[in-house]
Amino acid sequence: MKIQVINPNTSKDMTHSIGLSAKHVALPTTEIIAVCPEYGVASIEGHYDEAIASVGLLELIQNVQSEKMDGHIIACFGDPALHAAREIATAPVIGIAEAAFHMATLVATKFSIVTTLARTKIIAEHLLHEYGFTQKCAKIRCIDLPVRTLEEQEDVAYAQLRASCIEAKEHDDIGAIVLGCGGMSKMVEQLSKEVGIPIIDGVTAAVKLIESLHALNIKTSKWGDYAPPTVK
Amino acid sequence: MKIQVINPNTSKDMTHSIGLSAKHVALPTTEIIAVCPEYGVASIEGHYDEAIASVGLLELIQNVQSEKMDGHIIACFGDPALHAAREIATAPVIGIAEAAFHMATLVATKFSIVTTLARTKIIAEHLLHEYGFTQKCAKIRCIDLPVRTLEEQEDVAYAQLRASCIEAKEHDDIGAIVLGCGGMSKMVEQLSKEVGIPIIDGVTAAVKLIESLHALNIKTSKWGDYAPPTVK
Amino acid sequence: MKIQVINPNTSKDMTHSIGLSAKHVALPTTEIIAVCPEYGVASIEGHYDEAIASVGLLELIQNVQSEKMDGHIIACFGDPALHAAREIATAPVIGIAEAAFHMATLVATKFSIVTTLARTKIIAEHLLHEYGFTQKCAKIRCIDLPVRTLEEQEDVAYAQLRASCIEAKEHDDIGAIVLGCGGMSKMVEQLSKEVGIPIIDGVTAAVKLIESLHALNIKTSKWGDYAPPTVK
Amino acid sequence: MKIQVINPNTSKDMTHSIGLSAKHVALPTTEIIAVCPEYGVASIEGHYDEAIASVGLLELIQNVQSEKMDGHIIACFGDPALHAAREIATAPVIGIAEAAFHMATLVATKFSIVTTLARTKIIAEHLLHEYGFTQKCAKIRCIDLPVRTLEEQEDVAYAQLRASCIEAKEHDDIGAIVLGCGGMSKMVEQLSKEVGIPIIDGVTAAVKLIESLHALNIKTSKWGDYAPPTVK
Amino acid sequence: MKIQVINPNTSKDMTHSIGLSAKHVALPTTEIIAVCPEYGVASIEGHYDEAIASVGLLELIQNVQSEKMDGHIIACFGDPALHAAREIATAPVIGIAEAAFHMATLVATKFSIVTTLARTKIIAEHLLHEYGFTQKCAKIRCIDLPVRTLEEQEDVAYAQLRASCIEAKEHDDIGAIVLGCGGMSKMVEQLSKEVGIPIIDGVTAAVKLIESLHALNIKTSKWGDYAPPTVK
Amino acid sequence: MKIQVINPNTSKDMTHSIGLSAKHVALPTTEIIAVCPEYGVASIEGHYDEAIASVGLLELIQNVQSEKMDGHIIACFGDPALHAAREIATAPVIGIAEAAFHMATLVATKFSIVTTLARTKIIAEHLLHEYGFTQKCAKIRCIDLPVRTLEEQEDVAYAQLRASCIEAKEHDDIGAIVLGCGGMSKMVEQLSKEVGIPIIDGVTAAVKLIESLHALNIKTSKWGDYAPPTVK
Repeated sequence: MKIQVINPNTSKDMTHSIGLSAKHVALPTTEIIAVCPEYGVASIEGHYDEAIASVGLLELIQNVQSEKMDGHIIACFGDPALHAAREIATAPVIGIAEAAFHMATLVATKFSIVTTLARTKIIAEHLLHEYGFTQKCAKIRCIDLPVRTLEEQEDVAYAQLRASCIEAKEHDDIGAIVLGCGGMSKMVEQLSKEVGIPIIDGVTAAVKLIESLHALNIKTSKWGDYAPPTVK
Repeated sequence: MKIQVINPNTSKDMTHSIGLSAKHVALPTTEIIAVCPEYGVASIEGHYDEAIASVGLLELIQNVQSEKMDGHIIACFGDPALHAAREIATAPVIGIAEAAFHMATLVATKFSIVTTLARTKIIAEHLLHEYGFTQKCAKIRCIDLPVRTLEEQEDVAYAQLRASCIEAKEHDDIGAIVLGCGGMSKMVEQLSKEVGIPIIDGVTAAVKLIESLHALNIKTSKWGDYAPPTVK
Repeated sequence: MKIQVINPNTSKDMTHSIGLSAKHVALPTTEIIAVCPEYGVASIEGHYDEAIASVGLLELIQNVQSEKMDGHIIACFGDPALHAAREIATAPVIGIAEAAFHMATLVATKFSIVTTLARTKIIAEHLLHEYGFTQKCAKIRCIDLPVRTLEEQEDVAYAQLRASCIEAKEHDDIGAIVLGCGGMSKMVEQLSKEVGIPIIDGVTAAVKLIESLHALNIKTSKWGDYAPPTVK
Repeated sequence: MKIQVINPNTSKDMTHSIGLSAKHVALPTTEIIAVCPEYGVASIEGHYDEAIASVGLLELIQNVQSEKMDGHIIACFGDPALHAAREIATAPVIGIAEAAFHMATLVATKFSIVTTLARTKIIAEHLLHEYGFTQKCAKIRCIDLPVRTLEEQEDVAYAQLRASCIEAKEHDDIGAIVLGCGGMSKMVEQLSKEVGIPIIDGVTAAVKLIESLHALNIKTSKWGDYAPPTVK
Repeated sequence: MKIQVINPNTSKDMTHSIGLSAKHVALPTTEIIAVCPEYGVASIEGHYDEAIASVGLLELIQNVQSEKMDGHIIACFGDPALHAAREIATAPVIGIAEAAFHMATLVATKFSIVTTLARTKIIAEHLLHEYGFTQKCAKIRCIDLPVRTLEEQEDVAYAQLRASCIEAKEHDDIGAIVLGCGGMSKMVEQLSKEVGIPIIDGVTAAVKLIESLHALNIKTSKWGDYAPPTVK
Repeated sequence: MKIQVINPNTSKDMTHSIGLSAKHVALPTTEIIAVCPEYGVASIEGHYDEAIASVGLLELIQNVQSEKMDGHIIACFGDPALHAAREIATAPVIGIAEAAFHMATLVATKFSIVTTLARTKIIAEHLLHEYGFTQKCAKIRCIDLPVRTLEEQEDVAYAQLRASCIEAKEHDDIGAIVLGCGGMSKMVEQLSKEVGIPIIDGVTAAVKLIESLHALNIKTSKWGDYAPPTVK
């Protein structure tokens, strides 16, 4: 099977890193195709960035509709253009925020989120509300560093992230932590070891969910709300 | 004062019609600048259409930032790119769905929505949930006609809309009706007369809300979540 | 047009001050008639005060039904007798708490409320819950001073209010602040300047909302829940 | 012990009838003092009626504060002035709507309400929302008869009520029914027999709850929100 | 009348102590039969303990179905097997958590819970959510002592409990406190005196609610969800 | 890897059938061990059945703790003893109701549930509320046949189920259907073909979720609420 992993920002480094994470957990029979748009924004740190990134993201999905892709992952924690993507795709489409939320609730009664900049907290909060997970999330924390720090100053970012996870573990009455950025995916293993509670990364979670849906022969419903866009 | 009324689809007819509605209720001192993107989608009837239309919409807002516009209206009932627009604008930005919801709750305990195609009902439902108005909306009805029918077959559309409003009045335990499409704006006066309960149109409601905020000297908050997009 | 601004407590000083605030933002064509009951309570600082004040308040609305008033404002932050007032009025009736909440959500993702005595916090909390704004309000703060201090020791009250607003700005993850008492209306301009984020006052907000509904020709719905009281 | 049962409307017949219902279930050691205000409204069928009735109701509670009353019941299904009453009373105060809701949830997963006029449905709906019982109530039904019909045309009212209860039993997926008016109290026994599922009347339920609180030595909390009204 | 008070753990000491509390508030005409299972768990401090204890608990209810018991109390704060018990009982069944929550909301706008071990907080939280009382509970506190400390080191436990109640009173913006364990029942009187706000114990509350339902002739509904288990 | 699939009722036929379904979707490297308790109830059709079945279910999980099982599935739609099982297991534990809900929300905006007897609807409703999916479920339907009919009169059951699914598709404004009983698992493929929208079965969904968690190296959190039961 083939999964298109879309990093909606234009950072090739992050795309590569996300692709590696995805491959790391994928089945041997799963081909991971990690892509990012040619144009758009270098990192997604707000609603405007999301809106701009959505066009390139959707184009990437449309371009492969003839190639029998078996699933698409939107590898940005705001799940931008998720409903739109489901309208144009025939295979399942999963956002990494929802993927992480679903997984977290399977192993803990409550989780905290650790994201990048403070301003992205509202995006996570809106998603929790939309998906129905508001009461499962104890706290949304941030490390107050721009997304690109995860590539450019990995050590600094990791140290902050680790500190924030430990604080969450000690103070939030939780059982698990959700990483609030696709760029953190590469750090999930090390963090899990050091923090000592389940740390959930949406990229890897989404890969397994797509594989699961594929095995169950479940595709995006084309009956009703996710029918293809109307032709004008 | 100057209000930019943005019809996010590319229909010049609908833009013109929406502009007329806006002018009809604006103060004599308010200049209405009705615009639509040059490219995008001819009508917005789903999440994909919204995502695509958002780029042109945001561009229109960005282009006038130096012109001291006093407010922006997103004249599509899904309030597409609302949060994004607030990040880039300094003046207030209002979506016509939220405008209509706010006004409706001021004169009735409950309202119903009448929208166009069935598939747009989920968009209204998500907005109600996000804004906190779920319990104020008794039912979301649709006339099952494409948006462009409102321009191309106005009589047919009006008849359906009128019938649906009357059904809502009789069966939904409501006090008011919200029109679920910017293209219905021109019909609000006639409908109000014929249906006999308050019919709320978001375009005209938004004009008055922008004028209100202007008079109160309240602008989009630039503290926190709606700060300008980060520079990469 | 004519708007009756009702201060439901018996303080003529506060009525005068509220009237000035209202006039300050009203259109030149709007006549503001600021009134208060002859009997009742000197300030409203709890549920009992609200209940007692409601009778005088409703009487004031009934007395002007023949005068073609175009709107009524209930200038007390608990929105006392709001639904009752809508049953007897034909023009729109707006409470200052709801007015402020609606406006705040148009310019910020979240707001805090700053009210007077701690015991009035529960009233604000109930209103947020009833109106659907619970998730938009980050925190309800109080300055722990009686309402009348706003008249009698304006400087003390202002200093407290300013301090509380600044604390809210720094700690509550908000974009705007709602003032939780009609008597604070006169301080909104100065506070806005000093605090540097949108400060919303319900009195002035309500004036503009009434003018808006008037321009839109929308009145309190007399279909269903707000029909005139039954005749016994 | 002594319980003041307040019928907030001025109907002496209904007051008498409610008093009889209360006595019917009270302990031999409980004295029931059924009263109604001298002035106010003859029946409570909306928010305005509630607001007007509240003053007389509160006066009746205040007048007996020196008499060591052990509890007060507000025998109108809208629980008018409940929070206000708790501020001025030292003994517990219970509304018949809340009393009935609490009892119903102890014996059934869901209940329906049968009230009088359609316009009183919104009052019940708001109370369910405020108290937290929205999800426990399957449907609010009405018999579309004025409150006074319960006194003046008892047979007609009973027949309607019985029919509505049977419909609720058959169609609402419920286990119990709550009667939505103090005036229906006298019919609860006969209805229970004929309908064959638990029918809950708030008047009798409230009597037992007051007796329960008394036995537990629990009074209205004077710490915080229900402290006595501030002295001006 | 006869009430079966079931302590679902196997501690005879706690059963005796709970029985005494129940008798203390019961009517002279009420016979209290305090029982516990012969096998199961010595204390209930988590979901597993609850599940194991449920079988013995249900057996105790089944064994007395022929004896015309008038009510059953599940004297463990997690209300284990409550719905199951209602299926097999004909008389009312009440859990002590729900009993306490209902009573608390009758005398205060908000309450805090003080329970034993931190891990039992999630159980209380789930119950609040299921019953609809989430917004009425300000905070769930714990004394971080095992349940059996309430028997074995009563002084230590009492001191902790008292300290926690006082902290709740000072910091939680509440009017009442709910005790989160059947074993705390014996301490409620002393605590009430020392803390000075209403302290609600579920055991005694449940006794009075069962007596109330009995006096009202209301039994567990056998129509619908609580019908007897199907025979296989 | 090894997954223990527990059918909590004692029907060996259903256990076998559920095991087959599980194997059908499992990876070649996954060993499915389908088991049921030796004692308990023949089918689970209410809360009492759930409580009784829980003990055997938990015993089966405890018995294999030394065998390095990689996951446990509770193959009954009420997810009985789910939290308890997570306390005693070290590997992940998943209920088939939650599994199905999670998967359904990944491919459709809304789903309906089709379950067996009407009395089991309340169980599904409570789960939706606890998990946060209430707003994603349009309707809970039932085929009004006992669980064992799924084994004993497969044709009759299938016909009813198919009819109910088609009705849901036509009338519920949904995109997917969740099967509300483990015994329906074997029918999911045929139903999907005949109904033409995604039909989600919890047994197969849970298998893939356990495999996913295993691949991600995520286990039940032992930090906090799901720590092992306390030793008395």
